[in-house]
Amino acid sequence: MIGSTKPLAAPLQPPSPTGRCLAPSSCAPDSPPALTRAVESPRPVKAAASSHVLRASPQLSRWSRSRALRSGRRPGSDRAKLSSASASVLPVNKSLQPEDAAVAVEDGEDDDVCVAERDAAAGKAIYMVSDGTGWTAEHAVNAALGQFEHCFVDRGCAVNTHLISMIDSMDRLLEIIKQAAKEGALVLYTLADPSMAESAKKACDFWGVPSTDVLRPTVEAIASHIGVAPSGIPRSSPSRQGQLTEDYFRRIDAIDFTIKQDDGAQPQNLNRADFVLAGVSRTGKTPLSIYLAQKGYKVANVPIVMGVNLPKTLFEISQDKIFGLTINPVVLQAIRKTRAKALGFGDGYQSNYAEMEHVRQELVHANQIFAQNPMWPVIGVTGKAIEETAAVIVRIYHDRKQKCSMPRISKRY
Amino acid sequence: MIGSTKPLAAPLQPPSPTGRCLAPSSCAPDSPPALTRAVESPRPVKAAASSHVLRASPQLSRWSRSRALRSGRRPGSDRAKLSSASASVLPVNKSLQPEDAAVAVEDGEDDDVCVAERDAAAGKAIYMVSDGTGWTAEHAVNAALGQFEHCFVDRGCAVNTHLISMIDSMDRLLEIIKQAAKEGALVLYTLADPSMAESAKKACDFWGVPSTDVLRPTVEAIASHIGVAPSGIPRSSPSRQGQLTEDYFRRIDAIDFTIKQDDGAQPQNLNRADFVLAGVSRTGKTPLSIYLAQKGYKVANVPIVMGVNLPKTLFEISQDKIFGLTINPVVLQAIRKTRAKALGFGDGYQSNYAEMEHVRQELVHANQIFAQNPMWPVIGVTGKAIEETAAVIVRIYHDRKQKCSMPRISKRY
Repeated sequence: MIGSTKPLAAPLQPPSPTGRCLAPSSCAPDSPPALTRAVESPRPVKAAASSHVLRASPQLSRWSRSRALRSGRRPGSDRAKLSSASASVLPVNKSLQPEDAAVAVEDGEDDDVCVAERDAAAGKAIYMVSDGTGWTAEHAVNAALGQFEHCFVDRGCAVNTHLISMIDSMDRLLEIIKQAAKEGALVLYTLADPSMAESAKKACDFWGVPSTDVLRPTVEAIASHIGVAPSGIPRSSPSRQGQLTEDYFRRIDAIDFTIKQDDGAQPQNLNRADFVLAGVSRTGKTPLSIYLAQKGYKVANVPIVMGVNLPKTLFEISQDKIFGLTINPVVLQAIRKTRAKALGFGDGYQSNYAEMEHVRQELVHANQIFAQNPMWPVIGVTGKAIEETAAVIVRIYHDRKQKCSMPRISKRY
Repeated sequence: MIGSTKPLAAPLQPPSPTGRCLAPSSCAPDSPPALTRAVESPRPVKAAASSHVLRASPQLSRWSRSRALRSGRRPGSDRAKLSSASASVLPVNKSLQPEDAAVAVEDGEDDDVCVAERDAAAGKAIYMVSDGTGWTAEHAVNAALGQFEHCFVDRGCAVNTHLISMIDSMDRLLEIIKQAAKEGALVLYTLADPSMAESAKKACDFWGVPSTDVLRPTVEAIASHIGVAPSGIPRSSPSRQGQLTEDYFRRIDAIDFTIKQDDGAQPQNLNRADFVLAGVSRTGKTPLSIYLAQKGYKVANVPIVMGVNLPKTLFEISQDKIFGLTINPVVLQAIRKTRAKALGFGDGYQSNYAEMEHVRQELVHANQIFAQNPMWPVIGVTGKAIEETAAVIVRIYHDRKQKCSMPRISKRY
């Protein structure tokens, strides 16, 4: 088992030629998952070469037409491509059988569970395709989708994202793009291997699928800047694995430390923290600590509770690593009510934990402490995502360390 | 204090007109940090309009020339731009004083602490400029830098990244780009406001700074796909804050749960987990659990220790949420040795924790358990980043849930 490279069983099987669900037996909800052993560097099972012939379905033609219109191409040109261009436009690769390049994109979707689900949800599909974890594409798409929140909130439009990771063969890549064509999806990809990226682009163009290489402009800008060509090797490639970097150990240590220090535990270790967060219950100390630990910072958090003294060590350590968290009382009450409900306390639950008067008093108490410790920056977390509060803390930390005119977080590679 | 919007003091002050460090008093390492209160939505102090005159320093000219050569432009054209184009090329904005657009980019760097540090490190500079947290740019740049590891490892080239976040005024944006010109930096930016993004581009072109908009292609592809224009509002804008989404509570709950369940605690709650991870000490169960919790999954982890029975509940819960972790014994020994050292045990430390024979036996024991529970996928973590193992687990989870032909992780917005 150790170090072996047995392939994944079911989940990594390539989709059937038309992108439909496998035979009903493996689709049935009560059938046991076929997968039993997932090991390092899973490799896909080779697809059985399909002998379907490429033809443009009415649906595909509609999609191609509308996409051509959007992109400014002349409608109908895809039709011409479909009959003439398979030899010249389609990506050519040694691992690619000629038959694979000529697979029908069909209309029939009755037995495709996923497509049925998609139809029920009726959102526009976005495929994120990656040769690695796909987290970079996911992060970028999440950020980009933030630009369309105005539209999602009232559900005037809806989007379904699909993350398809560890795509390391041309066959699977083409299957995915075919499926994207079928679903009328947008394809956003990060593929380190330039020949894979180019094939993705060509196949998308060929099947009328809009597509964008998410990371290419950034990689190329860096390549040109440092005068070094990118390796073209995916992060998940075995040839790039095996190093245990300093960074790895730093992160692990930070997470270990942060968990042990959660919620005021072990005040004798506060001096070992990079940051100490102080705030009343439910100001987000724990998730914020954990987020910062993931970034490699050791974080301790200390709850401020009325009638309970803060640990003495808090005032003995370097004061410039301590941060206060504050929040709007109305929002805090809402969070605490949700929390009380999540813990299984009904509306009749008798406690002052979520009562407005108590919430206000606690925040006044916290702010008195902050006023007595002017060295502590106080960060209002109301309406901020965890990432946003973390960004403020990390920036202040680096500003103080660098003592430089321009606030910036610097790192050396 | 609550809900107030007092600006940050020192760290958010714009850099001095020439991008140098502030007066020595505020640069001195022993001076107390000027910052005492960081509150919501910090706003920069308005820069005093500079009356310096734009001129091309010899250094800037060298940078511009080399950059022009790289980008295929004719060298010398920047010189022409510098004298002729200020009216047409320079970004125009109501908040921008004409004087601001004509600031010298000077050579003298003797009193700039940050620049001195940079010179000592002698790496190529990359500026990541964002109107929000900057995490998206950072994530993309980290991923892109992975393509140049072959170059960093032998230190043939080195790169210094600088993350500059929450840039919400044109003045500060231009100061940063000037500083980038001075340092010969590459500028990679994510700016939601199209006028800010355009100004960044124009200013970079004007000062001969190579630049790329990291997120624009993705945003535009989505806009065109769903037929909706992007809002142009940065994530950190007050107008976009204040919603406590379902997603927020899901993440908080997942983190709370995961911390409480760490290292085999509370086996009675295993049924409430989305994933249960089982493996010997130092297979990365905790950091992996925490990473998955950040993504909103409730994770419990159960250590496999020779001579200690696994909790009975582990075999009573749904078996398809349990994952085994395994690792190469040589790598595990190296990790444990590092760990023992970090815990303060010297080489003379007498324990079998990191002894090869013991490590092997433990792994054999773990693999026997995995063999007895064929429903558990076993993931080899040797040489995998936490994110990579997480990607495999999340994919298997969604495959099983979706029971669909194409392995993908789907989400609705």
